[in-house]
Amino acid sequence: MKLLRVGAPGAERPALLDQDGTLRDLSAIVTDIDGALLSDASALDRVRAAAGAGVLPALDPTGLRTGPPVGRIGKVVCIGLNYHDHAAETGQATPAEPVVFLKAADTVVGPDDTVLVPRGSRKTDWEVELAVVIGRTARYLESAEAALAHVAGYAVAHDVSEREFQIERGGTWDKGKNCETFNPLGPWLVTADEVPDPQALSLKLWVNGELKQNGSTSDQIFPVGEVVRYVSQFMTLHPGDVINTGTPAGVAMGQAEPKPYLRAGDVVELEVEGLGRQRQELKDA
Amino acid sequence: MKLLRVGAPGAERPALLDQDGTLRDLSAIVTDIDGALLSDASALDRVRAAAGAGVLPALDPTGLRTGPPVGRIGKVVCIGLNYHDHAAETGQATPAEPVVFLKAADTVVGPDDTVLVPRGSRKTDWEVELAVVIGRTARYLESAEAALAHVAGYAVAHDVSEREFQIERGGTWDKGKNCETFNPLGPWLVTADEVPDPQALSLKLWVNGELKQNGSTSDQIFPVGEVVRYVSQFMTLHPGDVINTGTPAGVAMGQAEPKPYLRAGDVVELEVEGLGRQRQELKDA
Repeated sequence: MKLLRVGAPGAERPALLDQDGTLRDLSAIVTDIDGALLSDASALDRVRAAAGAGVLPALDPTGLRTGPPVGRIGKVVCIGLNYHDHAAETGQATPAEPVVFLKAADTVVGPDDTVLVPRGSRKTDWEVELAVVIGRTARYLESAEAALAHVAGYAVAHDVSEREFQIERGGTWDKGKNCETFNPLGPWLVTADEVPDPQALSLKLWVNGELKQNGSTSDQIFPVGEVVRYVSQFMTLHPGDVINTGTPAGVAMGQAEPKPYLRAGDVVELEVEGLGRQRQELKDA
Repeated sequence: MKLLRVGAPGAERPALLDQDGTLRDLSAIVTDIDGALLSDASALDRVRAAAGAGVLPALDPTGLRTGPPVGRIGKVVCIGLNYHDHAAETGQATPAEPVVFLKAADTVVGPDDTVLVPRGSRKTDWEVELAVVIGRTARYLESAEAALAHVAGYAVAHDVSEREFQIERGGTWDKGKNCETFNPLGPWLVTADEVPDPQALSLKLWVNGELKQNGSTSDQIFPVGEVVRYVSQFMTLHPGDVINTGTPAGVAMGQAEPKPYLRAGDVVELEVEGLGRQRQELKDA
């Protein structure tokens, strides 16, 4: 299923995009697309049955904002340097184990919402990523296979990053990863049963129409199951938590000088195969 | 006021500790102690008036668990190396600007809840800290004075840390800061009007009855107002967000070999002047 949330920020309603591409209202069946729903197999079955029976009311998508596809996100765990080609472009060695950092859930916005260039920023950068949404509480998982059974689904994430704040300001990466609007998510949460191989998805990102990133999750150093297993050794993952699994090569930081960092007026579009497409205009904060 | 939350995990009720030390039930007046309450001056005035009028029902504290004093926390922002004596003991230079990292809100537990030593941990360490709770949305604040006006109150925080995960496992500090139960908070949220000078508070921490940390917020490199102002340049602070403002000297990492890291069975007690006292027993995860 393609689950999503539509409406004004903070007042989104749950919806489903059906096989014919028709937007369907789920608000009579579930209160939200969130950790509570994703960990409730019978509720998900009810949604699936209603979708199959064709009884869900259609919604007119005209002028309707798409929000992030998951509400009440607890935390966003991010994996750094998880593609061979991206680690190479940053001049860093291939990590021996996953690099982990955090984004606060309040950085998450809808897939087509405005992204704000922070005040004082000179190095706002893009990163297309495959996001994993957790469906079952995960702690100390024993294998990558077991870990995949804790994944509710997948989505497109834009892990917007301010490189000076991230690297040159004397702290951890978090300082350049948590600016407001820095994590567009969606449009859809595609349930895991419809993503048979998360290691065979292309990822693309364009800036002002020019292709900048063109990678594949097959290039991930640590695949999705291993990432979830690994993170669960250090922190408990709860239903509705999100993991951004890293970005392939092609970010601004990896290019020749003058590096083409983002400015107000730029338009970023990004997609992950089968998970939909985002489009953000940059504005000044 | 001393605000707190009592009851079973996830089902705490709002309460107040009055001037006589009597625990009073607030659940007829407010639904929770959270960002919504802390940003609502008239609701806080109602609580204050009811407390003054002596009309709040008393609660029997016998056997009643104290939870974290703030519910629905959005994020926990942490400042590293913010005391001159602690920076010195870790062998690091005094930071030129605040070191920032994150803890997820799901690490927060009550002040006397069990703290779990993570599986595979050899270096679980303690850190007593002054926590700041945000009362008004803060972004791009212009001065430390303006920043202090965004502080709802203060609490004791235990920023439990796994040093090997934090420093030796090839990621950012977050990997050693986000294990489950790693952020006891409370017992109280003391409103800012009752903390006239946050830079004049003693902090103490004992392990198995032995005093390990004995510092003062007067030794902070970046005082509370500057910390809040600084963080607001990089991320938006929302009501109910928490900032852990750093720890003074005396952590296990700073001691001679063999360093006395925490193990199951150890008991940690900590207090910040005027903000109450915590007591945790360590157990294996």
